[in-house]
Amino acid sequence: MYAITPLSRQLESQIHQIIDQKTKPPGSLGKLEAIACQIALIQQSLTPSLQRPAMLVFAADHGIVAQGVSLFPKQVTVEMVNNFLQGGAGINVFCRQHDIALSIVNVGVDGHFEAHPQLVDCSVTSGTADFSQQRAMTQEQCQQAMDIGAAQVKVQQEQGTNVIGFGEMGIGNTSSAAAIMAALLELSAEECVGRGTGLDAQGVSHKARVIADALALHQLDSQDPRSVLEAVGGLEIAAMTGAMLAAAELNMVVLIDGFIATSAALVAMRLVPAVRDYMIFTHGSAEQGHRKLLQAIGAQPLLDIGFRLGEGTGAAVAYPLICSALVFFNEMASFADAGVSSHD
Amino acid sequence: MYAITPLSRQLESQIHQIIDQKTKPPGSLGKLEAIACQIALIQQSLTPSLQRPAMLVFAADHGIVAQGVSLFPKQVTVEMVNNFLQGGAGINVFCRQHDIALSIVNVGVDGHFEAHPQLVDCSVTSGTADFSQQRAMTQEQCQQAMDIGAAQVKVQQEQGTNVIGFGEMGIGNTSSAAAIMAALLELSAEECVGRGTGLDAQGVSHKARVIADALALHQLDSQDPRSVLEAVGGLEIAAMTGAMLAAAELNMVVLIDGFIATSAALVAMRLVPAVRDYMIFTHGSAEQGHRKLLQAIGAQPLLDIGFRLGEGTGAAVAYPLICSALVFFNEMASFADAGVSSHD
Repeated sequence: MYAITPLSRQLESQIHQIIDQKTKPPGSLGKLEAIACQIALIQQSLTPSLQRPAMLVFAADHGIVAQGVSLFPKQVTVEMVNNFLQGGAGINVFCRQHDIALSIVNVGVDGHFEAHPQLVDCSVTSGTADFSQQRAMTQEQCQQAMDIGAAQVKVQQEQGTNVIGFGEMGIGNTSSAAAIMAALLELSAEECVGRGTGLDAQGVSHKARVIADALALHQLDSQDPRSVLEAVGGLEIAAMTGAMLAAAELNMVVLIDGFIATSAALVAMRLVPAVRDYMIFTHGSAEQGHRKLLQAIGAQPLLDIGFRLGEGTGAAVAYPLICSALVFFNEMASFADAGVSSHD
Repeated sequence: MYAITPLSRQLESQIHQIIDQKTKPPGSLGKLEAIACQIALIQQSLTPSLQRPAMLVFAADHGIVAQGVSLFPKQVTVEMVNNFLQGGAGINVFCRQHDIALSIVNVGVDGHFEAHPQLVDCSVTSGTADFSQQRAMTQEQCQQAMDIGAAQVKVQQEQGTNVIGFGEMGIGNTSSAAAIMAALLELSAEECVGRGTGLDAQGVSHKARVIADALALHQLDSQDPRSVLEAVGGLEIAAMTGAMLAAAELNMVVLIDGFIATSAALVAMRLVPAVRDYMIFTHGSAEQGHRKLLQAIGAQPLLDIGFRLGEGTGAAVAYPLICSALVFFNEMASFADAGVSSHD
C-alpha cells in the first residue's frame, strides 16, 4: 500500500562533516543540527530546501461527545470550520504569518458548508459512532478517510509542496487520541487522558472512566493498529494517518503537531515503521498524555511552549525554526571559508 | 541615570479579556499568551506591534583566556567579528532570515578592523585585564562600555526600532558570565561554570578553579553589581548591561539571549529592578549555569532547543515566535465575531 523507503544513511557522515565545519562550537545549534541532518537525508541532498509549505486541517465529529467528555458542545466543530474559512482561527493567523498554504478538509463534520476555495468537502459520514457503545467507524469508513488524507497530500505535492503539517478540528477528539494511545501502548485510560479543551479534575476523571469502559468493551489488540483506529479513532485521525503515510511515501518532510496528530503518527508508525524517518515532532503539548506518548515514540519535541490548541498550530509556529535549520546548514560559513581558527 | 518606568498594570484585565475571548480554549496558546500580554503592557496598547527588529552584537576580548579557560584561541574573537562582517556567522544567517537589522559593536577586541557599514568601532581598550590577577576593568572603562551600549540602542530607536536583542562575541566570556553569576547570586564557581565552547570535564574543573580563585582574590560584595561587573565582567557584558537598561528606558521589548546575555541582564536588574518588566527570555542555553541563572531570576525561557552558540542566535531564532504572540493577539477572531459557541 504505502511504499515508504527507510532513509538511506549514506550521506550522514558527509552531512555531519558540513555541520561541524560551520563557524560555531560543535553541537552548539542543538536540535536544529539534528533537524538539518534529517531533512538533508529525506531529500538526499547536501543543499536541502523547503518548498511551498502546506497545512491540511482535517475536521470531523465524534459520537463520544454524547458521553459528556468535552467542555465545548459538539456544534463547535462546524462553527470552527466556518471560522477557519473566514480566516479567524489560530491556524489561519499562523499560516498567514509564515506563508503556509492552508486547506481545510471535511472528512466527517455533522453539518453543511458553503463552497469555499480553502475547503475540501468530502465527508465520509456525519461523524463517528459513539465508541463507548459501538465501533467508531466501519472498516470501509476508516479506509475512505485514510484515502482522502492521502489524496489531499498528493494534491499539495502536485502544487510543489515538499514540507507539510497536519492539523485537526473535532470536538471530543482528545478522547479518541487517548483511547488509541491506551490501546496501542497498553496503558490505562488514566495515564492517557487529559484536560482537552479545559476540563476540571472531575471532568477528566469522568472522561477516563468513559474511555476505560470503552476499552473494556472493545477488547482491542495492541498489535492491530487498523482495528484500534476503527474502533476508537476519529475520521480526522484516520485521514491524518493516511496523509502522514502518503507524505512520507512522497518524500516530504512531515511536521507532527500535538496530541491528536501524534496519536495518528503512532498509528502510522505501527502500520509502516519507516514513516518515522520523515517526521519532525514540532511541539510538546500541555495536554497530559502527549509527553508520555512522545516518550513512547522516542521523540523529543522541538518546542515546549504550553500549547494545547490543536489545529496544527504548534507545527505552524515551529515552521520558522525548521527553516532556521536549513538556513544555517546552507548559508553559514565554514571555518576554512571564513578564516576562523578551529580548536585543536 | 536610567529612568525606567515599572509597567503599569492598568490594562492587564482588558488584555486578558481580549485573549480569553479568542476562538480557542482559555490558556491554550501557553507562553505566547504571556508574551502578548507583556508586550501590550510595555507598549500600553491593545494593538501592540513590533517595528524594525534590531540585533546588536557586542564584541570584546578577555584577559582571562591567558589562564586556559577556553577551547578556542583568543584570536577567534577578531576572526569571528570579520566573519560577522562577511555575513557568514550564525547570527548573520538568522537575522537575514527574519529581517532583523544587525550591527556589530566593537567595544574591546584586541585587533584592528576595516571600516564596514555594519561595524560600530568604538573600542574602549583592547580587552579586559586578566581577572584572575587584577580587576578586569577600571570604573571608567566599565562605564564607557555601558554608555556605548546605551548609545547604540538610541541609534536603533531613532531608526524606528521598538524590539531589540543583544548578542556577544568574546572568547573567554562564559568565564566572566559565570564569575558574575557566582558573585551576585552567592554561589560557588562550580555551580556556575559550564563547557563554554566545548571544554571536557577536566577543562571545566580547571575553569571552575580559576574562577573560584579569582572570586577569592576580589572578595566581591554581592550587593554591589557595578563593582562585580568591573572586577570580573567583560567590556561586551558591560555594554549589554547598559544597552538593556537604555532599551527599557526607551520602552522597547528586550530580547534576552543565552548565558552571557542573561548575566548582563542580572547586573541590569540589580542596578534597576524595573528593567525586568521589559525582558523576554528567549531560550535556555545548554551551557550548564544558564538554567540555574534563569531560575534565580524567575524566568521561564521561551525555547529550549539546546543552543549554546551565543552571538544572539537564540534571540534571533525565537523572534518569529514573539511575532506569533502578537499575530494571535491582533488577528484572531473572538467567539462573538466568529459565531463560535463558548463553553459555559
